[in-house]
Amino acid sequence: MALIVQKFGGSSVADATGLARVAERIAATHRAGNQVVAVVSAMGDTTDDLLDLAAQVTPRPPAREMDILLTAGERISMSLLAMAIDARGVPVRSYTGQQAGVLTDTTYGKAQIVKLAPERIVQSLDDGQVAIVAGFQGVNEANDVTTLGRGGSDTTAVALAAALKADVCEIYTDVDGVFTADPRVVSSARRIAEITPEETLELASHGAKILHLRAVEFARRYSVPLHVRSSFSHKEGTWVRQPTKEDPMEEPVIAGIAHDASQGKITVQGVPDRPGVAARLFQVCASVGANVDTIVQNVSVDSQRTDISFTLSTQEAEATMHALRDAQDDLGYQDLIYTEAIGILSLVGAGMRTHTGISSTLFGALYEEGINIHMISTSEIRISVVVDIDELQRAVRAVHSAFDLDASETEAVVYGGTGR
Amino acid sequence: MALIVQKFGGSSVADATGLARVAERIAATHRAGNQVVAVVSAMGDTTDDLLDLAAQVTPRPPAREMDILLTAGERISMSLLAMAIDARGVPVRSYTGQQAGVLTDTTYGKAQIVKLAPERIVQSLDDGQVAIVAGFQGVNEANDVTTLGRGGSDTTAVALAAALKADVCEIYTDVDGVFTADPRVVSSARRIAEITPEETLELASHGAKILHLRAVEFARRYSVPLHVRSSFSHKEGTWVRQPTKEDPMEEPVIAGIAHDASQGKITVQGVPDRPGVAARLFQVCASVGANVDTIVQNVSVDSQRTDISFTLSTQEAEATMHALRDAQDDLGYQDLIYTEAIGILSLVGAGMRTHTGISSTLFGALYEEGINIHMISTSEIRISVVVDIDELQRAVRAVHSAFDLDASETEAVVYGGTGR
Repeated sequence: MALIVQKFGGSSVADATGLARVAERIAATHRAGNQVVAVVSAMGDTTDDLLDLAAQVTPRPPAREMDILLTAGERISMSLLAMAIDARGVPVRSYTGQQAGVLTDTTYGKAQIVKLAPERIVQSLDDGQVAIVAGFQGVNEANDVTTLGRGGSDTTAVALAAALKADVCEIYTDVDGVFTADPRVVSSARRIAEITPEETLELASHGAKILHLRAVEFARRYSVPLHVRSSFSHKEGTWVRQPTKEDPMEEPVIAGIAHDASQGKITVQGVPDRPGVAARLFQVCASVGANVDTIVQNVSVDSQRTDISFTLSTQEAEATMHALRDAQDDLGYQDLIYTEAIGILSLVGAGMRTHTGISSTLFGALYEEGINIHMISTSEIRISVVVDIDELQRAVRAVHSAFDLDASETEAVVYGGTGR
Repeated sequence: MALIVQKFGGSSVADATGLARVAERIAATHRAGNQVVAVVSAMGDTTDDLLDLAAQVTPRPPAREMDILLTAGERISMSLLAMAIDARGVPVRSYTGQQAGVLTDTTYGKAQIVKLAPERIVQSLDDGQVAIVAGFQGVNEANDVTTLGRGGSDTTAVALAAALKADVCEIYTDVDGVFTADPRVVSSARRIAEITPEETLELASHGAKILHLRAVEFARRYSVPLHVRSSFSHKEGTWVRQPTKEDPMEEPVIAGIAHDASQGKITVQGVPDRPGVAARLFQVCASVGANVDTIVQNVSVDSQRTDISFTLSTQEAEATMHALRDAQDDLGYQDLIYTEAIGILSLVGAGMRTHTGISSTLFGALYEEGINIHMISTSEIRISVVVDIDELQRAVRAVHSAFDLDASETEAVVYGGTGR
């Protein structure tokens, strides 16, 4: 008997048919002798519909009211799912975030979990019941309802799995697992059987829409094994976990390739080459909330001035450019250039720690395709390159082949997000 | 400065336009220097849509899950309404039943309020905020969500008004108040300016769809003045309150006429005329949950046997007939007859206590119209007669005229319920 937390995204429970399919899976897991906690997102388009309603009422809804509005979606899906499970003769109770003891801070819209007190979930499991929990939501100290932001249901599931010391947290999605690259771009992309949380974090934070960062960070911190799998099949998916000595993971050099077409590049030309100027520049960026990703400082043109380039989300570009222009006198730079037409390819693999020659294979593959590299950045287990956006997909395919990641036969299905 | 509780039904907040109209009214009441608590039902068809979803999932949903499902509706309307009020520059907070301290028993689907602990509402009012409260819902001791059943939002509003010692509880609906008869039947029906809670109870419990019984009972018990009025105009509506010495209500003899076409009649023929048989008969009815209304025991045909007739909701007729047939040997009656084609007219007025001749005017009016009376029952302030259903509307018009209730000019608008 195992304790299994299962998380189902909005696309898995979009209608009565989806609810029935999910209920059947949960019931089967329970009948097989397991304890089951199922975390569920809002049905299909519910959240968008609620956002539309709010937009009809006011362009600037108060964050507290927006959060309680949005949590209605999971109330609906969790109670309907409980009904569907009850109809299959399996004892079941549904719980809101508040009832499940999900305590958060007061950052409406992207609250952080500060404490989990899942006494009622434990009681339900002790009573032989399946516990359904509304994902994405919690309450703060004042008993006001909060939401956890994008990927919140994943976070709820992983946090509950950690608190309950679950054997596994299964993340159900509409694809078969995590792939070596986006199958829409690389038709020969392979499903990854096992991957470490660190690799998953690098892939997810560089454009792969697999799992949400916070959920993976939670899973890493509390050693919760994740199993990312399809709600439409019973195939094994991708296990996200640390390799253990008893069960040594056959660690491949490269786990996979992420790509990100949502970033732009700002180049600040003629920055005075003095200590402290770069720090001031990025303080300006931070002041408008921009998350700066890759940073490259070019060789000084002369001994006095240098060029600094960095990438950031295209959505944050306008405000950042505005703030930098306002700070031109203070920073003393000569010119400011914004380029939206860039793409970032990230090669991720824990094997980079021990294997050499990775970067030369990467750069060689791009050179052979005639693709120019604008910027490079690296972490311990990742190399990212910035290329022209028009060459991004070709670059991903070339690098995928160069590292022998292609599957012998295609098993890829439509690739999508995991809901919220 | 007054403390005003305002209740808005689902038809008042059916869409963004309705929400804006309601928000404007609440904001105006607040700007006029009043403290405002607004209780709101689910928007328009939301509850029906949720019931449809549940029906798609299972024919027999567990009551606990059904309740938490349905309460999503008020979560949506309360937060949207708060957004609309905030957009008008008025400080506002919305509260669920749980947050508002509405504690109930565990009778899912029709829970009774056992305690109100509205500390957060009081705090909001102290802070100069409008408090929006989700109607129809509460929590039980286990922190499980319950619903208060039909008319639940009215009950929430009146109970809060009582707990907060509000100056008035305004019930907003889509008509101008309580009328002397259903304006769809009697085009000359008048709006009633003032009416006692007792009269309102008699009218509401005999077919007038004005206010829900439990809400009026609450208002009577805790002396909460109700003001039933239209959300589409600023006209005075109907005040439901006890006449006071300082402000003596000009008490008319007759308040109004209710009619009820939803009852059927069961006649049990040849019942042994012995003590205890009637009691056993109605125990059988109660065992299947039937609410028996008017009861008439006819003159014994001979010294041994009698006929007993009673009315009950047509929805309860089948189960009751079945139970009575099963108990035929025990009860020893000879025959059982069910008639659905009956209607009940009820004349209500506190003045009946002191005025004489009411019943002769009533019976005279029906006689002149050639309408046959099948059964009669009376309370201290009500006379009800059972007639053929085909003659019910004609009977209502005739009696309305006979008691000089007709308005000099028609002010009636479409007559409907007050939502839930």
